[in-house]
Amino acid sequence: MATEPAPISFARGAPSLDIIDVEGLRAAADRAFTRDPAGTFAYGTSVGYRPLRSWIAERHGVAEDQVLVTNGSMQADAFLFETLVEPGDVVVVERPSYDRTLFSLRSRGADLRPVELQHDGVDVAEIEALLAAGVQPKLAHLIPNFQNPAGYSLSGEKRHALVALAGGHGFTIFEDDPYIELRFSGERRPTMFSLAEGDEVVYASSFSKTVCPGIRVGYLVGSAPLIKRIADLATGTYISPNMVAQSIVNEFVRGGSLETSIETVKTALSERAAGLSAALRRDLPEAEFVEPEGGYFLWVTLPEGTDGDALFIAAAERGVAVVKGADFLLDGGKNTVRLAYSGVRVDQIDEGVSRLAEAYHSLSV
Amino acid sequence: MATEPAPISFARGAPSLDIIDVEGLRAAADRAFTRDPAGTFAYGTSVGYRPLRSWIAERHGVAEDQVLVTNGSMQADAFLFETLVEPGDVVVVERPSYDRTLFSLRSRGADLRPVELQHDGVDVAEIEALLAAGVQPKLAHLIPNFQNPAGYSLSGEKRHALVALAGGHGFTIFEDDPYIELRFSGERRPTMFSLAEGDEVVYASSFSKTVCPGIRVGYLVGSAPLIKRIADLATGTYISPNMVAQSIVNEFVRGGSLETSIETVKTALSERAAGLSAALRRDLPEAEFVEPEGGYFLWVTLPEGTDGDALFIAAAERGVAVVKGADFLLDGGKNTVRLAYSGVRVDQIDEGVSRLAEAYHSLSV
Repeated sequence: MATEPAPISFARGAPSLDIIDVEGLRAAADRAFTRDPAGTFAYGTSVGYRPLRSWIAERHGVAEDQVLVTNGSMQADAFLFETLVEPGDVVVVERPSYDRTLFSLRSRGADLRPVELQHDGVDVAEIEALLAAGVQPKLAHLIPNFQNPAGYSLSGEKRHALVALAGGHGFTIFEDDPYIELRFSGERRPTMFSLAEGDEVVYASSFSKTVCPGIRVGYLVGSAPLIKRIADLATGTYISPNMVAQSIVNEFVRGGSLETSIETVKTALSERAAGLSAALRRDLPEAEFVEPEGGYFLWVTLPEGTDGDALFIAAAERGVAVVKGADFLLDGGKNTVRLAYSGVRVDQIDEGVSRLAEAYHSLSV
Repeated sequence: MATEPAPISFARGAPSLDIIDVEGLRAAADRAFTRDPAGTFAYGTSVGYRPLRSWIAERHGVAEDQVLVTNGSMQADAFLFETLVEPGDVVVVERPSYDRTLFSLRSRGADLRPVELQHDGVDVAEIEALLAAGVQPKLAHLIPNFQNPAGYSLSGEKRHALVALAGGHGFTIFEDDPYIELRFSGERRPTMFSLAEGDEVVYASSFSKTVCPGIRVGYLVGSAPLIKRIADLATGTYISPNMVAQSIVNEFVRGGSLETSIETVKTALSERAAGLSAALRRDLPEAEFVEPEGGYFLWVTLPEGTDGDALFIAAAERGVAVVKGADFLLDGGKNTVRLAYSGVRVDQIDEGVSRLAEAYHSLSV
């Protein structure tokens, strides 16, 4: 009996264990438990562990009451949507975009308006056309850096344009930015939050990609009145987020482990992205993609007519997991695939792409 | 200038730091990080950290797919209410009951029907009268042990009667049981969940009172289909709860620290409850109360006509914090006060009650 090949997964947007600083986390926990047992083990309040909130506020150059630290940034999204989005409200989203966010917005009855995501970010002209046609969005959800699923980033020019549109037309930009620290080439661009003159941008990020996902620490930055409303909702939902986890993160970031961890992660991601791009060019030249400058994801477009469902199955049969591009779209995208390189070692990538290519070539196109 | 007396708080239902096993938590964290870094630091799934879920399932004698581990039991409540309670649904609650639960249910548009809480638990005859009058509750929220705020516990006889009523009338009992392990005198009674023959009871508890609140680990036990629905909601809300915290709790409970911690907590609570009762009898003989057999709270009823708002202010002026009983009722209860003894040392109790008595006697009744 032939043995099954060990499975290789390009499916999950999560880091492999080798790029998580376990010893740094252990040391941070030890310091947290020693230095502030009262703050770490008691109930907190819904704004989060105060020393960490203070660190985040300083990093973003805002007042502390503009920051809410949550159990992961998905929870922050959920609170924000519950606060701002009523059934029937128009929400601009990127096409493609993160499937869980689309699901969350749809389950709240939002009227989603997907706008094409170009290589330099969302199509601003398409948003302008919507506005000109009288559409009045409540919110625009944008992932500006190394977008999930596409890996593309929003240009500096478009950032300025979008902030101006939001200010002029009275909608809020939700800048969902968990990948910002993971740039391994090219120039960092200013956040839309930093470009805004008023309250037109709410910003979210996370320590999932820079510390680890299991610690579930994310945060929102916005106007003090909005943060107060969301903090009240959070109090009613869970009293306080995880103080133990946030106290550990606080010691981790203040003790200098964050910068080291980010370097480790970026070095590994850069190697993996380069390896994946090279393997695709070699084994699957039919794949169109933009080589990533950061983040976790590479978006592959295969020739028109490729059956993504069949490819998914043929790949799985050969021991390689991918996510169908169609999962990130309200419709269409059958010929697209999202490849996450965050969780695969370089030595697995060649073999994984070879299997994927074999799966693709097995399809009768 | 006279110095202000150090404040003494009977307000917050939270443990003092001296009864939290900081060293046990440190050792548990160290083991968690060493033994299962992959499970601790990676994303989990919404059911929670599997080894802890398995431990909880075994403790309750249920299948693993009947358990969902959440970021504190308040979050479990919120998920359950979102799943089961539609606007206009009738929900039976205890009078008085936990203010945050009342708020959460009201904010979902539930039609609350408060039923008198007697010394041996909710008034079953009053529920029967409601049912006889044609009221069809969707849910009954009950805190069976050392109720918050009253400290009373539900008798064994009433537990049986309530399970029978729920089965016969097709409503669900939400057995909200965070204090169950904190009995320091009297006999433990079976949970309503264990008495039920069908799916008429959903059970929630927490490690907040036995490990520590800042770790935010609670859980739900129910039928597998209901738990599946709630797990799907949790996935959409936060992907997974805190794996780091749940992995630490898993090592804490499996390493034997839980039993030690419960003994420490119960010993301290027993001394504090006895001290508080003795001080009230001595300094505030006008106070009517039932001496607690467990838990965090003692409910004081003062003579009819006592102005709770004025008492609250007079107490605060003398450096003692309490919670107005009226906060736990939809109306009435002006002459009642909740005293939490979980966070005060024995040596603070006499002084705190002396101040409270002085505050009471300062009022013109």
